[in-house]
Amino acid sequence: MPELLLSQLCRVISAHGFPATLEGRDVHVRSVSTLEDAGEGELSFLSNPKYARQMETTRASAVIAAPGVPTPDGRSMVRCENPYAAVTVAIVAIHGHRRHPQWGVGDRAEIHPTAKLGAGANIAPGAAICAGAVLGDDCTLYPGAFVGERAQLGNGVVLFPNAVVYDDCELGDRVVIHAGSVIGEDGLGYAPVGDKWMKIPQVGKVVVEPDVEIGANCTIDRATLGTTRIGTGSKLSNLIAIGHGSKIGENAMIVALVGIAGSVTVGKNVTLAGQVGLAGHLTIGDGVSVGAQAGVSGDVEPGAKLLGSPAVDINVAKRQFIAIQRLPAWTRDVNRQIKDLQDQVAALQAALKSADGSRR
Amino acid sequence: MPELLLSQLCRVISAHGFPATLEGRDVHVRSVSTLEDAGEGELSFLSNPKYARQMETTRASAVIAAPGVPTPDGRSMVRCENPYAAVTVAIVAIHGHRRHPQWGVGDRAEIHPTAKLGAGANIAPGAAICAGAVLGDDCTLYPGAFVGERAQLGNGVVLFPNAVVYDDCELGDRVVIHAGSVIGEDGLGYAPVGDKWMKIPQVGKVVVEPDVEIGANCTIDRATLGTTRIGTGSKLSNLIAIGHGSKIGENAMIVALVGIAGSVTVGKNVTLAGQVGLAGHLTIGDGVSVGAQAGVSGDVEPGAKLLGSPAVDINVAKRQFIAIQRLPAWTRDVNRQIKDLQDQVAALQAALKSADGSRR
Amino acid sequence: MPELLLSQLCRVISAHGFPATLEGRDVHVRSVSTLEDAGEGELSFLSNPKYARQMETTRASAVIAAPGVPTPDGRSMVRCENPYAAVTVAIVAIHGHRRHPQWGVGDRAEIHPTAKLGAGANIAPGAAICAGAVLGDDCTLYPGAFVGERAQLGNGVVLFPNAVVYDDCELGDRVVIHAGSVIGEDGLGYAPVGDKWMKIPQVGKVVVEPDVEIGANCTIDRATLGTTRIGTGSKLSNLIAIGHGSKIGENAMIVALVGIAGSVTVGKNVTLAGQVGLAGHLTIGDGVSVGAQAGVSGDVEPGAKLLGSPAVDINVAKRQFIAIQRLPAWTRDVNRQIKDLQDQVAALQAALKSADGSRR
Repeated sequence: MPELLLSQLCRVISAHGFPATLEGRDVHVRSVSTLEDAGEGELSFLSNPKYARQMETTRASAVIAAPGVPTPDGRSMVRCENPYAAVTVAIVAIHGHRRHPQWGVGDRAEIHPTAKLGAGANIAPGAAICAGAVLGDDCTLYPGAFVGERAQLGNGVVLFPNAVVYDDCELGDRVVIHAGSVIGEDGLGYAPVGDKWMKIPQVGKVVVEPDVEIGANCTIDRATLGTTRIGTGSKLSNLIAIGHGSKIGENAMIVALVGIAGSVTVGKNVTLAGQVGLAGHLTIGDGVSVGAQAGVSGDVEPGAKLLGSPAVDINVAKRQFIAIQRLPAWTRDVNRQIKDLQDQVAALQAALKSADGSRR
Repeated sequence: MPELLLSQLCRVISAHGFPATLEGRDVHVRSVSTLEDAGEGELSFLSNPKYARQMETTRASAVIAAPGVPTPDGRSMVRCENPYAAVTVAIVAIHGHRRHPQWGVGDRAEIHPTAKLGAGANIAPGAAICAGAVLGDDCTLYPGAFVGERAQLGNGVVLFPNAVVYDDCELGDRVVIHAGSVIGEDGLGYAPVGDKWMKIPQVGKVVVEPDVEIGANCTIDRATLGTTRIGTGSKLSNLIAIGHGSKIGENAMIVALVGIAGSVTVGKNVTLAGQVGLAGHLTIGDGVSVGAQAGVSGDVEPGAKLLGSPAVDINVAKRQFIAIQRLPAWTRDVNRQIKDLQDQVAALQAALKSADGSRR
Repeated sequence: MPELLLSQLCRVISAHGFPATLEGRDVHVRSVSTLEDAGEGELSFLSNPKYARQMETTRASAVIAAPGVPTPDGRSMVRCENPYAAVTVAIVAIHGHRRHPQWGVGDRAEIHPTAKLGAGANIAPGAAICAGAVLGDDCTLYPGAFVGERAQLGNGVVLFPNAVVYDDCELGDRVVIHAGSVIGEDGLGYAPVGDKWMKIPQVGKVVVEPDVEIGANCTIDRATLGTTRIGTGSKLSNLIAIGHGSKIGENAMIVALVGIAGSVTVGKNVTLAGQVGLAGHLTIGDGVSVGAQAGVSGDVEPGAKLLGSPAVDINVAKRQFIAIQRLPAWTRDVNRQIKDLQDQVAALQAALKSADGSRR
């Protein structure tokens, strides 16, 4: 990791479109860390005001923060209107991206003679590549990674340990699959015959488009027929299940433990928070955002923001949550008010009857 | 893959008990695909009316559909009252089931000398079989598959890459375990000692009965004592957790991300939709169906259909959902109506008092 | 497994602080099983009264139960006020803990020359240890286990098959990771640039403190900066996702399919039931308990017990559930009562007007 002067760093951050200026001494920093964990020689940052109190106790040598944030005693400050963007640039500048171990292609990787490897292949011992598979240039396969028959990988693909790509599936350029994720297993395709289940061969595939990153231990079903597709630039967290034949648009952000059933079509730039479920055969529009634990059971218009199970518009959901929270007390209130009214009406009826009687 | 004439295909489908007839030219088809993805020489199908519009644009050479569905211009039609069953038969006839790579038993599989392999063993390099394990005939183990000490596999078992069977567990004939699933890890068995947890050795096992198929990255706990059991013919999707000592009956259909706690007894022919949770020590009757994201916290009678968290009868749940959706507006209505009534009653009381006074 | 006389066993259980006495014949038992599964020569137990009826049919030779539980015909009884603790001691005494296969360090494990192994290393063929990794004494790595560059493992660590430890992560003494779990994959760290996502290198690590046991197919994100931490003695079930930078306190008990977002701080002795979700940047106090499927979206005070999505105090949640269950019927009741009141008030108004008119 290179040491950088804060003045150099300010130039790099500014060059990315986020003007940054130095306050205080122009010291070297060798790494970036959190306010809590940073020590001497380290750079930190304050973006979320929730952590402002840590500015008083941090041991970081320098801190990235917005103008106006008070300076901790004697520290250098990198001032930037967008501290989150600035720290992102700083992490890339100082730490760079992960450098994978370099295995080359040894004789302890299991590579079928009919498989084709591109230039710069970096295939660990214990990785397996089956017959007819084709890999682009500069692919890295960690130990235990598996590429099935006739699967195709683009350039710069990384399969972390024990990531599995079933037969006939395709990964685009620069796709990254973290440890233990599975691409292209059979989906839950069975036809009922009496009270038993007859397997429907799952003869489709999965296509993961370029620049997708998939976290650990996800499962993406191959299509029964045709293609399950993950769109360019989409980012998936861990433990996500995507059903057979579903198609996810570009630049999706999908959080852990989300389940998407089969034959769902998701538009571009969609965000699905943790533990969300989407029922089968739905169409989800571009730009949709679904809150944590929501369950979506109907088509969703572009741009909608949903919450709840069953999911509804987020503002409607919040009103429902408030109404439910008030419901036990309100139930008692209403019952009492109605009882009061009934008593009063009965009293009025009696009084009127009595008055009526007294007038006769 | 064999090319088939549509007339041949109609005979095969009819022979399975689903009478099918040909309309239009008797052409060859070489594969089956979706209406959207199919091209020249491919067969497609229409079963879900949601996709009827794709009949106008499909490039499939032939389509399986129910009688009465309009014929796309110039295409051949296979007419069958049950298009879903017909296409299932067609996929099997044209594509067949997956043909696994053939590894035989090489010296790069790790097989303990005391393990026993049946005839036709197909054990990939990088698969591991521990001491005392016994495999039936025609088992296929992909790279990274693991069979623990004394585990027993029946005939025709398939372990996809990195599937793991812990010590002493048993898989029946034709059981298929997809990539990354784990059979027989220790469950969450700890006794509280002060504010720490003391591990209870998990000395039971898992028995997976014949013809079960388990998806990718599932986890089936071994029993603390005795047996965790998955019944004959049950089908599990991905990322499913089943707790120690639970017993699942025959022909279950379990969708992704379902969690079943420990010591649960599930009857036959039960369906659990995505992200369902079952609490511990429950008894779930035969034929029960639980809707997506439901949380079941009590025993369930046979044949019941449940929804919601906490789960109730599906029709009750739907009425609750509707009541909740109406709740914010209805709360305002009720508050206003009660206020109106209170005002009117107060006015009546005043009027009566005044009338009463005027009568004195 | 040693055979033990019941009298010996009573002495062992008593020595652990749970006084136990023998009723009936002092027979040998060779294993422990459930009331349902136990046979001749086996010991069983009754702790949960739900299973009391199985006492009549069990074939166990002896049963551990509380005083007062009726004795099945002719069986021996071990009487103990705390049968659950007693059976835990009995299982350890009779079965002990799992004995791992002994591989030593063969030449089919992939161990980088710069990695350091402690005494008693037990590294299976097909396990991989990368450059600069350091393992303590008596570590067991099953086939397919992976230890990344510069990772550090304490003494007595066990990695079951295909467990993965990414670069720079640290596991304390006696940490056990079950099959397929992943420690230290990149979290979902991306900065929005236009409508695309720019990856933030995840340069932090994971520290798993001593005596933690993690189930199968879990995923623990490395921190973006700094450390994701799992506290001493915590026990995790399967399919659990923990986000980058979160810190779990000591002795947590976390059930399957729980999702914890990033930057969450969880106190000591916290219990999270199945499918619980915690939103990002929260602080959860010591001793908190969260019920199954709950979704926590705010900080939680020490000792609180929560339920529901969104989660609230468990008693409040239960009142809400009851109110919701009554809501459809209560809605009809309230609407009818209000209509009745409106009719009665209208009648009163008419009567008063008429009386008023008659008085003029």
